[in-house]
Amino acid sequence: MKHASLVALVILFVSGCGAPDESEVLHVLETQRRAWNTGSVEGYMEGYWKSEELTFVSGGTVTKGYATVLERYRQGYSSPELMGELSFTGLHTEFFSRTSAVVTGEWRLRRLADEPWGRFTLLLKRLPEGWKVVYDHTSLAVE
Amino acid sequence: MKHASLVALVILFVSGCGAPDESEVLHVLETQRRAWNTGSVEGYMEGYWKSEELTFVSGGTVTKGYATVLERYRQGYSSPELMGELSFTGLHTEFFSRTSAVVTGEWRLRRLADEPWGRFTLLLKRLPEGWKVVYDHTSLAVE
Repeated sequence: MKHASLVALVILFVSGCGAPDESEVLHVLETQRRAWNTGSVEGYMEGYWKSEELTFVSGGTVTKGYATVLERYRQGYSSPELMGELSFTGLHTEFFSRTSAVVTGEWRLRRLADEPWGRFTLLLKRLPEGWKVVYDHTSLAVE
Repeated sequence: MKHASLVALVILFVSGCGAPDESEVLHVLETQRRAWNTGSVEGYMEGYWKSEELTFVSGGTVTKGYATVLERYRQGYSSPELMGELSFTGLHTEFFSRTSAVVTGEWRLRRLADEPWGRFTLLLKRLPEGWKVVYDHTSLAVE
C-alpha cells in the first residue's frame, strides 16, 4: 500500500500538476492583436520571447533576435495606415508538453490600400515570464 | 533504500528509455530528398503521415490529408525537369518530447529553367510506423 501511494505520488510529480491551458496560449495572441490594433508595435512584440534566440521566418528570410525582429516590424509598419486592422482566424493549438505548444492559423490585415493575408505557424514556450512565441513562421498568400 | 530504488525505477519508466535521436528524424528528410532526386514523388511522400490529418501549408493555402497532398505534388511536379534537384540546408531539430520534434531549414530546387527556394517548418511525430511529418509549413522566397 505504502509503495503504491509512493509510486502514484512520483508519477503525479513527474507528469506535472495538471493539463496545459489553451486559453493561456491564445491569450498571448489576443493581447498581440489588440496591441497591434491600437497602433503599438511594441505592445504586439510583448508576445515574443525577449531573446537573441527568437526566430522569425517569412518567405525565404530568417530574422534572429528580439531587437532585430522589433526593428523589422518598426520599419515595415511605421504608421497606423500601414498597420491596418489585424485579425486571426482558424486558430489551432496543439500541446507537445505542459510548457510547449504550436499554434497555427490565418492572419489578415485590413488596410485602406490593400488586404494582405496568409498563414502562420508559431512555437510557444511557457517561460518564467509566461507563454511566449519563440519561433514564428509567417507566409503571405500570393493571389 | 528500497523506496529510493523504486522511485528511481518509476522516474526512469515515466521519463522513457533514453533521449530522442536526431539522426532518426533527419533520416526521414534525407530519404525524402533522395527519393525526390530519383524522380519519385511517391517515395518522397513516404516521409509524410498517411492520415486525413496531415496538414500542408504553403503561402495562404492549407492542404489537408495525405491523398490530397500527394495529388498536389503530382500535379505540380509531373516531370523530372519540374522536380529538379532538391537540397536542404541549415537544418535545425528541436525535440519537444521523445515522440515529437520540429525541424526547420531551407529548401532549394535546382532546375534548368529556374532555382526556386524558401524555408520550411516541419512537425514530426514518432508513430508506430516510425517518425513522420504530420505538419509542413513551406514558404517560397520572393526575390
